[in-house]
Amino acid sequence: MIKIGVLTVSDRASKGEYEDLGGPAIVDYLNEVVISEWEPITVIVPDVQDTIAAAIKDFATQECAMVITTGGTGPAPRDVTPEATEAACDKLLPGFGEQMRTASLQYVPTAILSRQIAGLCGTTFVINLPGKPKAIAQCLDAVFAAIPACIEMAGGPHLETNTTRFTAFHPVHKH
Amino acid sequence: MIKIGVLTVSDRASKGEYEDLGGPAIVDYLNEVVISEWEPITVIVPDVQDTIAAAIKDFATQECAMVITTGGTGPAPRDVTPEATEAACDKLLPGFGEQMRTASLQYVPTAILSRQIAGLCGTTFVINLPGKPKAIAQCLDAVFAAIPACIEMAGGPHLETNTTRFTAFHPVHKH
Amino acid sequence: MIKIGVLTVSDRASKGEYEDLGGPAIVDYLNEVVISEWEPITVIVPDVQDTIAAAIKDFATQECAMVITTGGTGPAPRDVTPEATEAACDKLLPGFGEQMRTASLQYVPTAILSRQIAGLCGTTFVINLPGKPKAIAQCLDAVFAAIPACIEMAGGPHLETNTTRFTAFHPVHKH
Repeated sequence: MIKIGVLTVSDRASKGEYEDLGGPAIVDYLNEVVISEWEPITVIVPDVQDTIAAAIKDFATQECAMVITTGGTGPAPRDVTPEATEAACDKLLPGFGEQMRTASLQYVPTAILSRQIAGLCGTTFVINLPGKPKAIAQCLDAVFAAIPACIEMAGGPHLETNTTRFTAFHPVHKH
Repeated sequence: MIKIGVLTVSDRASKGEYEDLGGPAIVDYLNEVVISEWEPITVIVPDVQDTIAAAIKDFATQECAMVITTGGTGPAPRDVTPEATEAACDKLLPGFGEQMRTASLQYVPTAILSRQIAGLCGTTFVINLPGKPKAIAQCLDAVFAAIPACIEMAGGPHLETNTTRFTAFHPVHKH
Repeated sequence: MIKIGVLTVSDRASKGEYEDLGGPAIVDYLNEVVISEWEPITVIVPDVQDTIAAAIKDFATQECAMVITTGGTGPAPRDVTPEATEAACDKLLPGFGEQMRTASLQYVPTAILSRQIAGLCGTTFVINLPGKPKAIAQCLDAVFAAIPACIEMAGGPHLETNTTRFTAFHPVHKH
């Protein structure tokens, strides 16, 4: 059973003042594209760098194949998810941030404001997504084709994806 | 009255051996696209990392909404503007450099040599432009649509831009 | 006589368990595109960060105009060439990695997994390429037009390239 960490980073969601929409959107996306037996481990933390980094490391200790974060990637003073991710990771993979920003630029010119990164914490692949649920599928569509290979090369498990369903469902992959 | 810092980085211009063309080109550009009442604070410094970083921090202390630098972004030994900017900033915004290089590649293959970055020094948005006056509009056209949102999200003032004039004037935005 | 360092990074090739294909592919490429008199200095090292960094610095001490590495740029635990390159360089040039990944994406979605960077070690230009021989020409085609200018701006020698042959041979440049 493959474990995938889903980390919502939001001051308000962590206090229960705001419904977490990002986390469930990630689980929905994964339910569509991952064929391998998997289970999500969902955690909500406030926008505090050390807390976010500790949550990522904890997912790695639990041998999650992947950790997907949502929120805290923008230019606001409280947005520190990329810094926390960099602190938790041994290696960074700059191509993911570049490609997700390029893809998001098709939808909004403010896509360049997202500071989202990806990297490896041990053999666990970690990737930042914006907080807006709509941006989650847009970003993952742009990079998901490379994720199973990344996880395997890093020493993680084989993640089978439903490429038919995936391709059919996500228009970006049609071109 | 919104303040915008315009920082020319050039050994020769700082000694008066060379006319500063980059600074005035930035002011001209802003006069066309910024509708809000604003005033430029123009400074010229030599290519010295600590001096550049101190000038950026000084603009932030003066509560500039934005600092635009010109010069010192290339591969020459004296080019240290990106390093100085990184040292002065609390947060980096990699999407700006990526997008400006991509846009400049339409004009010259050497666009990839520009090491220009953007970031936030407190609530002040900081962005590096090349020294060549022609490259200034090319780079700003590629990213200006995202700048007012960035400044507001970072806690700075509302910057009204003349999108009609802007769109009409700068061909890159037509496509 | 211009010297160009060709550094193969591979545990297996360094032990002689595997034929080095990347190094010869780089020499072949340079034979086609470089007109100036030049000689390669080829070295093979294992995937050890300090060893790779020391080899790069040694090439710079020998006044190589350029160092091209192959291998060790992926997400595998032993892949540390980018980290070694960053440690050896005084300045980084992020546009090279961005542009090579963008070009490689035309061929494979896993191009974003390459963590390859470029920078300057003194006046020596350093660039990482993937280990796969096929990716070497794809990556160099995407950025070579900017390399001679970079070397000269950094204080290195004038590198004459056969642009006709180059353009004719490499399809990416036709568009």
